[in-house]
Amino acid sequence: MEKLLCGVDIGGTKCAIALVNTEGKIIDKINTCAHVNLNEDGLVKLVAEQIKELIQRNQLQETDLQGIGMGCAGHIRFRDGVIITTSNLKGFKNYPLRDAMQKYFKIPVILDNDANAQAFGAYKFGAGKGYDDMVFLTISTGIGAGIVINKKLFRGATGTAGEVGHTIVEPHTELTCTCGNKGCLMAMACGMALPFLYQKKIKEGKKSKLNIPPHFDISKLSGQYLKKGLDMDDPVSKEIISDSAYYVGLGIYNIFQTLNPPLIVLGGGLTNWGDFYLGKIKATFYELARDMIFDPIKIVISNIGADAGVIGAAALTLE
Amino acid sequence: MEKLLCGVDIGGTKCAIALVNTEGKIIDKINTCAHVNLNEDGLVKLVAEQIKELIQRNQLQETDLQGIGMGCAGHIRFRDGVIITTSNLKGFKNYPLRDAMQKYFKIPVILDNDANAQAFGAYKFGAGKGYDDMVFLTISTGIGAGIVINKKLFRGATGTAGEVGHTIVEPHTELTCTCGNKGCLMAMACGMALPFLYQKKIKEGKKSKLNIPPHFDISKLSGQYLKKGLDMDDPVSKEIISDSAYYVGLGIYNIFQTLNPPLIVLGGGLTNWGDFYLGKIKATFYELARDMIFDPIKIVISNIGADAGVIGAAALTLE
Repeated sequence: MEKLLCGVDIGGTKCAIALVNTEGKIIDKINTCAHVNLNEDGLVKLVAEQIKELIQRNQLQETDLQGIGMGCAGHIRFRDGVIITTSNLKGFKNYPLRDAMQKYFKIPVILDNDANAQAFGAYKFGAGKGYDDMVFLTISTGIGAGIVINKKLFRGATGTAGEVGHTIVEPHTELTCTCGNKGCLMAMACGMALPFLYQKKIKEGKKSKLNIPPHFDISKLSGQYLKKGLDMDDPVSKEIISDSAYYVGLGIYNIFQTLNPPLIVLGGGLTNWGDFYLGKIKATFYELARDMIFDPIKIVISNIGADAGVIGAAALTLE
Repeated sequence: MEKLLCGVDIGGTKCAIALVNTEGKIIDKINTCAHVNLNEDGLVKLVAEQIKELIQRNQLQETDLQGIGMGCAGHIRFRDGVIITTSNLKGFKNYPLRDAMQKYFKIPVILDNDANAQAFGAYKFGAGKGYDDMVFLTISTGIGAGIVINKKLFRGATGTAGEVGHTIVEPHTELTCTCGNKGCLMAMACGMALPFLYQKKIKEGKKSKLNIPPHFDISKLSGQYLKKGLDMDDPVSKEIISDSAYYVGLGIYNIFQTLNPPLIVLGGGLTNWGDFYLGKIKATFYELARDMIFDPIKIVISNIGADAGVIGAAALTLE
């Protein structure tokens, strides 16, 4: 019997733990939110217990698993399996998460950044199948990337390669990123920019059909709201989505000039904006790239779906 | 006896052909400008004859050479050895330069982009020695990069990876690149931007000590002029050099976030601006990178010197 994979996707609100087969299909899964209020060691114990629960309730042995892959947002020192910093969880500064989890298991435990995990999932099980090189870009609350070169993740000196969201594309803007710099790609284009962009359009006198009540906490204006706006043909929502698409298209163009990959896969919540969004992204990219494309480049939305994080984490065990 | 390397650096005004030893030292060299007015096949014949002349006058056989490496500015389809486009030479559109040269020799001929050649030279013989990964950035009339990953050049799908000069870092500017886009790194920072930047400062009412005569063709204002200005403490020259350094520093920051390399080597004519320039570049980089650097990153000016092009081309035979 081919071994199963175990994936753990540690998010800021939800932690998903799953058994995944070598085709990338989920066999069984546990979602928990209980990790949020635990300290480092408490979180590790909880996740380890859930993994053991999954093994037991599927009548498996630990050795039926290839390994345990964990994905977590933040800066990860890959070789050492250490979370350097993460904004998803309290604490976890320079925390050796991989080794802490390894104490509970004999099979290998791997820890990587969530964008890298999703990239490797897309490479193994999704749109990247059959390619040697590709770039995965996740457009969500933030923007991150995973770079596959010669069938492996390229991680750089520390393990933080692919932080494309922090590349600066508009230095003379008022939009500031969580990192403190102005005009990072993620400050301009992703979920965290939406409230600012909405307020700006309204201040410019634009009328939105969204009818957001005056007492609404505008910092909670999410991609889902704008999706509603898009569906009701709201001009303000469409303008914001177009603005985001412009910068994502520009970011993809910069990746293209730097790495010349044959494939760029887009994931993350904002890709739910669908064809309107992808169309604008591609239009910007092709307008900038013009006659500098000499081989086909494919830009697609990931087909892995909502479980991309945990499936990607599981994929790390196959690298 | 260890084999020698042959390098050919085909520039827009000068073509250098050299025998180089495996330490990266030039044994013998021919410079010619006669290639400029020749057609494709004429240039190949000329260069082949000069290589044979070098072999003969050093009492060597062709088989005493490891191979012939050629570097040329422009878009190169590496696998096929084809110049797709080059702005350095008339013609040469989709010209199979490698195979045309190979007809004259039995030893292997390799063709790559000049920035890649210089990158590999810096990796083999210069500041990159001992590293597995590095990025080389040449700041000259244009800006280009060569990316070394796992001891080899990373070229991407076509062979055009490393075109960092065309990444867009200031989309809402009036500065237009030769590619037609606004705000490419090379439009903002390199040799081709200097006349525009100088005129802008003068229009703003700034006084330069350079005393450029009114009939001077301002499009010829080069880095060397501004070096004179820097040496005489001219405030306008220093401002332009600082502006260039800002964007180069930002470009290096973007490379850092994307590839997380342990080493970035700077080459090209504008590095002759020296410590003032490098200091400003580094200041910008560290101001942007702040607490996001977790392992040492070295930023240095290449120590290969004026022959970096032809020595780098020779280094390609060692890849």
